[in-house]
Amino acid sequence: MTERIIQLIEEKKFSVLKEELVEMKPVDIAEVFDELSKKNSIILFRLLSKDQASDVFAYLSTQQRKDIVGAIHETKLNEILEELYFDDMIDFLEEMPANVVKKILASSTEEERKLINQFLNYPENSAGSLMTIEYADLKKEMTVRDALNHIKKIGVDKETIYTCYVLNEKRKLQGIVSLRKLVLVDDELLISDIMNEDFIYTTTLDDQEEVASLFKKYDLITLPVVDTENRLVGIITIDDIMDVIDRENTEDFQKMAAMEPNDEEYLLTGVFSLAKKRFFWLLILMVSATVTATIIRSYEEILGSVTILAAFFPMLMDTAGNAGSQSSTLIIRGMALGEIAMEDYLKVFWKELRVSMTVGASLGTFNFIRMLIFGDPADIALTVSITLGLTVIMAKVVGGTLPIGAKKLKLDPAIMAGPMITTIVDALALIVYFRIASVLIGF
Amino acid sequence: MTERIIQLIEEKKFSVLKEELVEMKPVDIAEVFDELSKKNSIILFRLLSKDQASDVFAYLSTQQRKDIVGAIHETKLNEILEELYFDDMIDFLEEMPANVVKKILASSTEEERKLINQFLNYPENSAGSLMTIEYADLKKEMTVRDALNHIKKIGVDKETIYTCYVLNEKRKLQGIVSLRKLVLVDDELLISDIMNEDFIYTTTLDDQEEVASLFKKYDLITLPVVDTENRLVGIITIDDIMDVIDRENTEDFQKMAAMEPNDEEYLLTGVFSLAKKRFFWLLILMVSATVTATIIRSYEEILGSVTILAAFFPMLMDTAGNAGSQSSTLIIRGMALGEIAMEDYLKVFWKELRVSMTVGASLGTFNFIRMLIFGDPADIALTVSITLGLTVIMAKVVGGTLPIGAKKLKLDPAIMAGPMITTIVDALALIVYFRIASVLIGF
Repeated sequence: MTERIIQLIEEKKFSVLKEELVEMKPVDIAEVFDELSKKNSIILFRLLSKDQASDVFAYLSTQQRKDIVGAIHETKLNEILEELYFDDMIDFLEEMPANVVKKILASSTEEERKLINQFLNYPENSAGSLMTIEYADLKKEMTVRDALNHIKKIGVDKETIYTCYVLNEKRKLQGIVSLRKLVLVDDELLISDIMNEDFIYTTTLDDQEEVASLFKKYDLITLPVVDTENRLVGIITIDDIMDVIDRENTEDFQKMAAMEPNDEEYLLTGVFSLAKKRFFWLLILMVSATVTATIIRSYEEILGSVTILAAFFPMLMDTAGNAGSQSSTLIIRGMALGEIAMEDYLKVFWKELRVSMTVGASLGTFNFIRMLIFGDPADIALTVSITLGLTVIMAKVVGGTLPIGAKKLKLDPAIMAGPMITTIVDALALIVYFRIASVLIGF
Repeated sequence: MTERIIQLIEEKKFSVLKEELVEMKPVDIAEVFDELSKKNSIILFRLLSKDQASDVFAYLSTQQRKDIVGAIHETKLNEILEELYFDDMIDFLEEMPANVVKKILASSTEEERKLINQFLNYPENSAGSLMTIEYADLKKEMTVRDALNHIKKIGVDKETIYTCYVLNEKRKLQGIVSLRKLVLVDDELLISDIMNEDFIYTTTLDDQEEVASLFKKYDLITLPVVDTENRLVGIITIDDIMDVIDRENTEDFQKMAAMEPNDEEYLLTGVFSLAKKRFFWLLILMVSATVTATIIRSYEEILGSVTILAAFFPMLMDTAGNAGSQSSTLIIRGMALGEIAMEDYLKVFWKELRVSMTVGASLGTFNFIRMLIFGDPADIALTVSITLGLTVIMAKVVGGTLPIGAKKLKLDPAIMAGPMITTIVDALALIVYFRIASVLIGF
């Protein structure tokens, strides 16, 4: 598909291409842009029909949009923006340079400008930043027939009309009615008789993660957003929530792998920008690992005469790291999904203690037998195996409870995960290792 | 809320409780069950109205359902099952012991039994296992008015009617129409004039991850599922897809932290079962770490005379592990979201090489200066720093490309992540370390 389009552009067969584009879905066309040069992108974009242009535009990346905005005429840009859903337009304005935004605002009406400015001011990751203003509003006094006629009149422009919002004259939200209900019930009934007054809603400043969990918990398709006086200011639709869930998960994956979060696609992000996101945490962790170096040096005497002890450092460190991240991952994920709360601290501690004793004892025993079979001296094998068992226990208890502790201190649990825990547990493991060696091998 | 309900049960104020339950949402009632004893769960369940009972039942955990099924009368169970959506009923049957399933099948009609057996046979994680049979079907020849009347007649039972499916007499899927369109267009139009024939669909055996990406890509609310002859067999709704996304992410988190995946909630999973899921991978990794022990032993001579070299093992191992998991996490996540494909192998290799050289050189330089300031001998500082830089490069290149290679070999990329990469990179880092030490310090 993509190759064919590139070929048609290269061969300048624009009328053929134009016809083929009409048959394609906007999101599929948008994917083709990822493979095009800047010049070809602009040619392709110009070939799109007016309706398609705005649909495709909504799916492009920031850089692609910037390229296109720089190349097309202002009138055409305004046409595209008019066709965009309000939430997509706000997203677009947020990523454009100030001079472009200024130009666009200048060509808007007074009322639009006020609304745009209000939406641009909602904090990132808030419910306000996700909402759109396209929805169907009804009044209590309407009959179902009135309501359906009203929807018919206004509905074409609305992003979703599957849930309709019943407002009073001050735009306070009084109830919701699903389109399903409107279609199924008798035409003569009043909206006030069939509306649901016990509905789920959110406010503009609520965090997007909380909003996403409302969608999941109550199986919602849309969610109304009200201001402090309970007036409806917008709605959030499930397609935007799917994006939020992906972004939040990506962020957690990145933080747990010791990176600063970044929501640009990997292949579209520059080398320097990627390096920067990774350098900071590696540096912190490298420096904090000097603790382990200091511990090892303070036992240089014993290490000098029983050099073989050093051979098990990597195995002990890796097992500690793996055991710790098993626990922290389960707990962090459980907290993200709302399955584990801060009050569960003691429950988690107790459970991790039992799990880790089971796993630690089994691994230690297994390792002891293995080392004896491989001909290692019994005192070394015992030292390594006891340390291994205790390390697993320490790693799992620290890994399981540190994330909850972090949340209690209002720190991000995901950041405390893998890397931080590794450094702490490594230090503990080394101290235990040398202490046991001193006793068993005798120094 | 929960405390109040427990109190009302303890004080046997059942009629008060019954009244309060009517005001609550099913999913909120279901959450209360998590805190109740088995005895109190059964009391609470019995107090629910018939409608609420089946809604609440759909949200309970496997164990809670088993408890309730064991305690209530068969007639009541059948009543509940009749009220469940078909996909929820199938989920329920899948988790019940065989004798319960047998009893339920015995009380079903011949036709129901056939359908249930067909659905129970769809493989886990397939589109077939996610679908429901409640949908609105239309015919091409209907007018919009006919269609709306038809929906009114059949619609009450349907899980979603927002998308209607146009079938011919052989139940082949010919097109789809959204309820939105039916409400907005003229009553006299024919379905064949307004239906969308270029719709997205899936087949029963497609994997649930692919289905989820279709929902995300095309912003769907429902998706039709057809058999090999293009006959409609069911539909998938977005609420089930939200669950799939959460489960798939949880699985990836668990695999990347070296655990066998498990989709039970942490607090509801037993100690032994948790231990088992973690033991296997720790064992594999522990055993594979013997490679590192062997490498260190083969350099025992140099280590015996320059013991201080061992002091930097943990720092080198941890930095390698962190650098590798940064890269593998980004790539695995990018593949899961469909942003990185197998063809991008070389692009990723080249990008990781450049990123890792930037990061490796910076970290190495930083560490060299730090060690000199702290009074370490220059040859040791140089050995550690060069190794550090090279380790970061190796870790990132291995971490970035191994997941893609795994996918090429049809292995799960997430399993190849953190732990596997750690072992490989640790071994490489040690060899480099000792080689450089031999040259610089001279052995």
